Amino acid sequence: VSFEIRYTDLAARIGILDTPHGLVETPTFVPVVHPVRQSISTSFLRSLGFHIVITNAYIALRHYGREAIEKGIHNILNYDGTIMTDSGGYQVLEYRSIQAEPLQIAQFQRDIRSDIAVPLDKPTGYGLKYEKAKRFVDETLKNAKETLAFMSKQDYYHTEGMLWLGPIQGGEHSDLVSYSATSLDKMGFNIFGLGSPVELMEAYEFSILAQMISNMKHRIPAKPIHLFGAGHPLTIPLVVALGCDMFDSASYMLYAKDNRYMHAYGTLRLEEISYFPCCCSICTEYTVDEMLALQPEKRTVELAKHNLYVLKGEISAVKQAIMQGRLWEYVMQKARAHPKLFEAIQLFKNYEFLGDGTSLFKEKALFLFDTIDQYRPEIRRFQNMVSNFRSTDKKKLVLYPEPSVHPFYCTKEYGRLLKRFKNAQICTYNPFLGVIPSEICDIYPASHNLTPRSLYSEYLIEDYPTFIESLTKFTTVNHFEEIIIIADSFMHKILCGDNNTITRQFQPQILDYEEYIASKV
Amino acid sequence: VSFEIRYTDLAARIGILDTPHGLVETPTFVPVVHPVRQSISTSFLRSLGFHIVITNAYIALRHYGREAIEKGIHNILNYDGTIMTDSGGYQVLEYRSIQAEPLQIAQFQRDIRSDIAVPLDKPTGYGLKYEKAKRFVDETLKNAKETLAFMSKQDYYHTEGMLWLGPIQGGEHSDLVSYSATSLDKMGFNIFGLGSPVELMEAYEFSILAQMISNMKHRIPAKPIHLFGAGHPLTIPLVVALGCDMFDSASYMLYAKDNRYMHAYGTLRLEEISYFPCCCSICTEYTVDEMLALQPEKRTVELAKHNLYVLKGEISAVKQAIMQGRLWEYVMQKARAHPKLFEAIQLFKNYEFLGDGTSLFKEKALFLFDTIDQYRPEIRRFQNMVSNFRSTDKKKLVLYPEPSVHPFYCTKEYGRLLKRFKNAQICTYNPFLGVIPSEICDIYPASHNLTPRSLYSEYLIEDYPTFIESLTKFTTVNHFEEIIIIADSFMHKILCGDNNTITRQFQPQILDYEEYIASKV
Repeated sequence: VSFEIRYTDLAARIGILDTPHGLVETPTFVPVVHPVRQSISTSFLRSLGFHIVITNAYIALRHYGREAIEKGIHNILNYDGTIMTDSGGYQVLEYRSIQAEPLQIAQFQRDIRSDIAVPLDKPTGYGLKYEKAKRFVDETLKNAKETLAFMSKQDYYHTEGMLWLGPIQGGEHSDLVSYSATSLDKMGFNIFGLGSPVELMEAYEFSILAQMISNMKHRIPAKPIHLFGAGHPLTIPLVVALGCDMFDSASYMLYAKDNRYMHAYGTLRLEEISYFPCCCSICTEYTVDEMLALQPEKRTVELAKHNLYVLKGEISAVKQAIMQGRLWEYVMQKARAHPKLFEAIQLFKNYEFLGDGTSLFKEKALFLFDTIDQYRPEIRRFQNMVSNFRSTDKKKLVLYPEPSVHPFYCTKEYGRLLKRFKNAQICTYNPFLGVIPSEICDIYPASHNLTPRSLYSEYLIEDYPTFIESLTKFTTVNHFEEIIIIADSFMHKILCGDNNTITRQFQPQILDYEEYIASKV
Repeated sequence: VSFEIRYTDLAARIGILDTPHGLVETPTFVPVVHPVRQSISTSFLRSLGFHIVITNAYIALRHYGREAIEKGIHNILNYDGTIMTDSGGYQVLEYRSIQAEPLQIAQFQRDIRSDIAVPLDKPTGYGLKYEKAKRFVDETLKNAKETLAFMSKQDYYHTEGMLWLGPIQGGEHSDLVSYSATSLDKMGFNIFGLGSPVELMEAYEFSILAQMISNMKHRIPAKPIHLFGAGHPLTIPLVVALGCDMFDSASYMLYAKDNRYMHAYGTLRLEEISYFPCCCSICTEYTVDEMLALQPEKRTVELAKHNLYVLKGEISAVKQAIMQGRLWEYVMQKARAHPKLFEAIQLFKNYEFLGDGTSLFKEKALFLFDTIDQYRPEIRRFQNMVSNFRSTDKKKLVLYPEPSVHPFYCTKEYGRLLKRFKNAQICTYNPFLGVIPSEICDIYPASHNLTPRSLYSEYLIEDYPTFIESLTKFTTVNHFEEIIIIADSFMHKILCGDNNTITRQFQPQILDYEEYIASKV
């Protein structure tokens, strides 16, 4: 499988997946297209830039049978882009059994010329007991293995560029997710699908969803990942940031049927809308009252189109954020759509793998707002660099509050400090970055960040553990005989606090910043 | 002047302003239309739902002279909606003097049948010394007074429904803003315009802007307020929340000429866009490359249209947030577009006037995310109610962590507490709301909020001063002889802290919540 990763930010990537029916740029939303009853035309989907759709092989088999094989699924759907076929796993989840054998479904997907096919899986969903979930995982693995064996025997697998997707199951049982992912990877799958987060999302269990994706990404960091049934603007930034490349959903249509209107932060029932908070062509054409007055079928179609515009806009916004290296800001902002989403993004503190895709240098300054921002990959990386910084033969350390002008060594303050404290190691400090040796104060992002400086005096030092850590490490690793601290109100709090080893160990000379500045005259 | 306020949230209101050329619903963006060179047609503006525009009377006078008087400004602009005319104050700001007398400009605005006219003002902008700013304010007041006198003498003022707007100046000098507003109000103006925030906004001094608006609103709480030159999606939620009803700008066009593309969180240069993060008809029609390949004139027009779609979408989103009582959430979320905006919204802590327009009851649950949310008007109001709550003849107080099921008195936990602690005052508690007596635990928003509960254990008590206050007040005002606290990790922190008077005063009986729950079996 050719999957070329072009740009990355956090664990998100902009990639190009090569399929028999063309290149698909990821991350992408994959609209669910019903093989029989589809009221939004595939040409409309294509015109919106959706170059991949997913349809249900099981339903196609039941409804069209041989006709689908003769015509091919692309003619059936009247769509010449990439078509992914789901095996019927969803039907398994819904009805607990289906009338088709794994190899029959596999053969059928191949025969209708599906671009991306899925072995029949048994979705674990959410809330299954461990033993039962394990049985489902094992059954899925067995099907997957047999399917691959069957296909490679028939010489189908390698000859026509068709992709087979390994269905990862396990639900909230993280070791099952890991086991499932590892096993499928060993079998030789080159694209993976994480199963059945629908129930998790309906229960707003975004933290479990995040943890599930994180578990999987630790096993399969590089290959393309599809997330089944996760097409909501609320969760798109989260799942992309964690490394999902594609996600399908019928939500645009299901919601529309139920008069539910998507927007950037969730959904609204049509009846509770007074003003369409959107500028798509549907929302420009109709007022809310006009929309409500439409015939139900027409209204469903128009609402579904609006929902697709919103999904398209959301994907574009996420991709633009990746290109600008602003995905962290974007995710944090979007997370304020719901307290449960806000809980989920707190996990980013612990997700070191988000650093792998984050550029060493970015063109734009980082915007730092909240305490969680001290855990940004760019900042962790800088803090690591500082912890490896050795001040050669300097006996004196001077700590100075970082001014707003960057880099520090170009400022008058720096010159003044140099003059006053001869042969000293001069560093600035800032609540988010910690200690910043002036020798490396032009290294990204030390000179490339914007913070709410006027709020520093209200900051609680306990909210900035990485600052304490940075200060402690720097003074422990280097061997200063004298420490002079020009202290702003944030630093004063640290020096007064119980947890500060620096006062006890070094008895630093402390100058108040305001007084220091005033004495300049 | 008829200005009917229909709905409110924070200091924002949805209102209907009656003008000679129809009703204008506020809050609204007021596009600047150039009287001579206007490349976006006024019919396009009208089709987007902009039923009011502003144009420059001084330029119209210089360019058209008598022709404008004969035809009327509506024919000149080919627009039959409401037209506001600016007097030329902006030209004063730009060129420091203009060739027209105050009464001549006033007479001209009346003669061209302007719907909303502005006496010639002298904008203070930002950065003027106090004395000079005071002179500008006084000169503006003198012009305003003479204009009203002249108009009322000519019997124009009252007869034709034309509105005269009182131009408030003063810049960052808050007492000048107050003085200016009070004086204009006394003169009898019924609509007001706050002058020249353009420079403040260019300097990202959003905190000063917020303070300026707050000062003005304290003097003029109810009448319609226009904010001059403030048409940026970044600041719209902020200024609407603070009580501005209209705001004009030429930014949609000026930015377009400079290849700057508006989006919900700021602007981007066209060259730095890879994917249009928008679903308007322009962004659906063109790719970025196609847009860049357009002829400059055509590109400017298309970009300006896109910018207008964004502004329209932003206004609609803000109005929808007002209708849903979610403006606080919306503003807080949008504030994460820039650290300087984030600083500005911290001022909301101190703005008690935001409570005046906030409904006593809302249909939707409040979403609570950050420490600033404890200062929401709905929550302050509840805390006040609790501080007036008197527990009659109860000698015992029981404090219990608020469970997620609401209202508390319907839960099993409540029944169990009642049984165990006979004749006790039972209250729950939550970091944002403080103490919640079970008798009033169904009062909005005590049972109507959603919080990131899983994060409570990480909360620092110092971040929740209103909690301590609520607890202290409740135990001071009521006369309990015994206090039993079932303490979650958040409460444990309070009880261990130095600042807690409750432990010292009452020696409460403390039961650990986890243990209490476990002992239930």
